Amino acid sequence: FQNTHTFYSDDKDDTCILNFTWVNYKMEPGNVSIASQSGTFASHINFVMEELDLNMNKCISVGNESNIDICDCLEYFEMDEFTDVILLYIEEVKRGRRFIELVKRIVPKKPIIVLYVGGSEGGAMAVSSHTGSMAGNDKIFNALFEQTGVIRVYTLQELMDTAALFSKMIPKNILPANNRIAIVTNAGGPGATMADKASRLGLKIPQFSEELQKDLKKFLPHTAQGDQASNPLDYTFSIDPTTYFKRVPKMLAKSGEIDAIVAYGAFGADFFSYRTVGKKILESPKYKKLIYMYTQMFEAAVDSARRIIKKYKIPIVYVNLMGHWQDEVIEYLNKHGFPTYKYPHEAVNALNHLIQYGVFLQQTQK
Amino acid sequence: FQNTHTFYSDDKDDTCILNFTWVNYKMEPGNVSIASQSGTFASHINFVMEELDLNMNKCISVGNESNIDICDCLEYFEMDEFTDVILLYIEEVKRGRRFIELVKRIVPKKPIIVLYVGGSEGGAMAVSSHTGSMAGNDKIFNALFEQTGVIRVYTLQELMDTAALFSKMIPKNILPANNRIAIVTNAGGPGATMADKASRLGLKIPQFSEELQKDLKKFLPHTAQGDQASNPLDYTFSIDPTTYFKRVPKMLAKSGEIDAIVAYGAFGADFFSYRTVGKKILESPKYKKLIYMYTQMFEAAVDSARRIIKKYKIPIVYVNLMGHWQDEVIEYLNKHGFPTYKYPHEAVNALNHLIQYGVFLQQTQK
Repeated sequence: FQNTHTFYSDDKDDTCILNFTWVNYKMEPGNVSIASQSGTFASHINFVMEELDLNMNKCISVGNESNIDICDCLEYFEMDEFTDVILLYIEEVKRGRRFIELVKRIVPKKPIIVLYVGGSEGGAMAVSSHTGSMAGNDKIFNALFEQTGVIRVYTLQELMDTAALFSKMIPKNILPANNRIAIVTNAGGPGATMADKASRLGLKIPQFSEELQKDLKKFLPHTAQGDQASNPLDYTFSIDPTTYFKRVPKMLAKSGEIDAIVAYGAFGADFFSYRTVGKKILESPKYKKLIYMYTQMFEAAVDSARRIIKKYKIPIVYVNLMGHWQDEVIEYLNKHGFPTYKYPHEAVNALNHLIQYGVFLQQTQK
Repeated sequence: FQNTHTFYSDDKDDTCILNFTWVNYKMEPGNVSIASQSGTFASHINFVMEELDLNMNKCISVGNESNIDICDCLEYFEMDEFTDVILLYIEEVKRGRRFIELVKRIVPKKPIIVLYVGGSEGGAMAVSSHTGSMAGNDKIFNALFEQTGVIRVYTLQELMDTAALFSKMIPKNILPANNRIAIVTNAGGPGATMADKASRLGLKIPQFSEELQKDLKKFLPHTAQGDQASNPLDYTFSIDPTTYFKRVPKMLAKSGEIDAIVAYGAFGADFFSYRTVGKKILESPKYKKLIYMYTQMFEAAVDSARRIIKKYKIPIVYVNLMGHWQDEVIEYLNKHGFPTYKYPHEAVNALNHLIQYGVFLQQTQK
């Protein structure tokens, strides 16, 4: 390897961890592998990975590809039983014809998510000074990606966010076949923001049937806007975990009217911290008991959600702006299979890519 | 107020803090104020604000505007001596004519940054169920914003990121009059990613003059790509704080060839943690002395950078992917006036908006 400093590998039996980088990472074997023309994107990313509960299997930095290139990595990841999701950071593709052959063959089996930066004028200029490559044309790459079902992202954050979702959904084969999403929220603003983003990405936010609305209305709190069970489904101020994590997802998933769910307001028992209820109340025995009960309800409801997404093959992603404060909840959700993001648009973006991949597979398998 | 739960105010003398929300925030008086048609975006955001070292002065949630509306808030913020930067979360504008009058009058004095979600099909639908508003047309709003110099953002993250930058630069009157940026990086991938993003936003990444290149080359490490002092300026593997925070910014700022700087790799002494050099080495007296010296160099260099941006009116923003690990460095930079972001595109986005505002003022004052 030239111009590269990363290569490590985790195996499922945890017996073979190789880390050739200069950082002693906390590593857990994951199911996502990356081949990158930047060493940084195969090493500095570990800290955002931790936050997103995203674990890698293999990280290969190919640098300027003096001996091994992106195509070699693709061939390796294709066969590697530990890799479910393939990430690429690309500045240019040297063996174009081979690359097309490979992605065509691999995408129907494993998703490929690409951050390609060589397509713009500024990107091309930078790339030529970084790896000495001639960069390509955005339009040609977009056509290639679209035709072969490769997922293109435009920022490193989008790459990480999307990988976190794919990493959790692909092994369970939870892949939407269509683009109808339900937006669930316990606060109006984030609901509107997610609807705005989803709409700009071309996702459908269908109105629910009268039958489904009737069911959903049963659990709407009186604080919800206008007493409507519309989409976005707004149950402002509700903090009942059984409704939020179990009843509503189940009704939506069963209905057959939507293909994916994005939900704002993933609150757990940490919500009732010294910052909201005060230290004095928090430490009273009565309150401690309530928190314990709430936690039990929360965990049972999340367990139900886990079974719901598996049974109905409907992905759910959560959003919680209060990352700092709610870390335990976010960790719990992530560990139980639900990618949880800080900002509303991150969740919608990642979900959009999962839908894109699901729809592609659906269409090509026809 | 109806459908609202937030109103608080911090004064510079720290004697008057009102917090009517249900959360006991850690509040420091800042110079940014927000008027929001979503209570969530005036309350749940405090946690991301903490991360970004963004402090509010007034947060007003106007809900569905049953008595006070966005225009009233604008009038108030216009006169308020503690407010330097105005943020708005808008689903619709009820008094359109008055809104136009106000933003026209205010923008030349104080920047207004708007997250407007009512312009897309999905946004409009959600908005009508949230505050019962009729949403407007994206094109009309974009034309209005462009004509009046209002900064439009599309995500909450962009709103927060941009506010963090404006909050630090506006009081010092650091406003680029043109859109030529220098990209500085100690890793090729992030440099290329930032160049790609900047180019897509229409920013210029000019090549440096031969004279400037000659100066810049003096401090390029041998690990830099191709021994070039091109833009992006890539000095891969350099961890010399004096070069990174002082020499390079000074040469760039003095040159008159660029209007703003974005820099990846804001490493400080925390870089040499147990994760990179190991606990044993870290705790040796010799090493401790080295860390101490490095910290002195780092702090002196950041102090120089602070004087450079003030003197030449050239903003610098930093990026460090390793947020978790480098919190002290990020906090130090933020506290000394340098907004520091996790992802490369966040920094470029925020900088683009500052340039947009600076160029608008420049053009209208002609």
